[in-house]
Amino acid sequence: MSALPQPPYYAVIFTSQRTQVEDGYGDMAERMVALAAEQPGYLGVESTRGGDGLGITVSYWRSAEDIAAWRRHAEHRIARDTGRSDWYAHYTLRVAKVERAYAWTRADGTQDPQA
Amino acid sequence: MSALPQPPYYAVIFTSQRTQVEDGYGDMAERMVALAAEQPGYLGVESTRGGDGLGITVSYWRSAEDIAAWRRHAEHRIARDTGRSDWYAHYTLRVAKVERAYAWTRADGTQDPQA
Repeated sequence: MSALPQPPYYAVIFTSQRTQVEDGYGDMAERMVALAAEQPGYLGVESTRGGDGLGITVSYWRSAEDIAAWRRHAEHRIARDTGRSDWYAHYTLRVAKVERAYAWTRADGTQDPQA
Repeated sequence: MSALPQPPYYAVIFTSQRTQVEDGYGDMAERMVALAAEQPGYLGVESTRGGDGLGITVSYWRSAEDIAAWRRHAEHRIARDTGRSDWYAHYTLRVAKVERAYAWTRADGTQDPQA
């Protein structure tokens, strides 16, 4: 992920447990990442899912208002509805204000795939 | 993860990219999760790592002071130092105040491995 601005900014911590239903999930997840990146106030995203089906996606935003606007986006609403009907067994969503941030990168030339 | 209290509380968002060095990493990671759970103000943790080596761990705490105390813990310091020397190519740590939280669980009897 690109460098973020100095705090304060906002994080949406989305933790989810997938069902076994794959139908359309991958396409939707990719589309939501691309669509979020076009929204006002979007700063970045970090996302991963382990072999046990637990996923954590953290998206970063300039303000709580920007997050609220993204939540109301029509295509995002449809994805959310389908997530509830098909893809997720459980999820938790938290909105948090980032107060401090610190990054460390190895200085020995190791590639950083997030850069 | 068990249910958390009503916000506000704090989240530490730790995003890391692993090196290829495995030596002791798994044991350390397990030990840190167990040790964190013994600290004052600890509320819970969610952690996952994908096949690409990107990991996200979010731990939850009652206050910023509890987080600072955990950061100063001697055994945690040693793990951090070894993380920098051996295990991590890059990491970012953010301290954020959770303002709102929302959980959804499928009502059809699907097991929730996080409960």
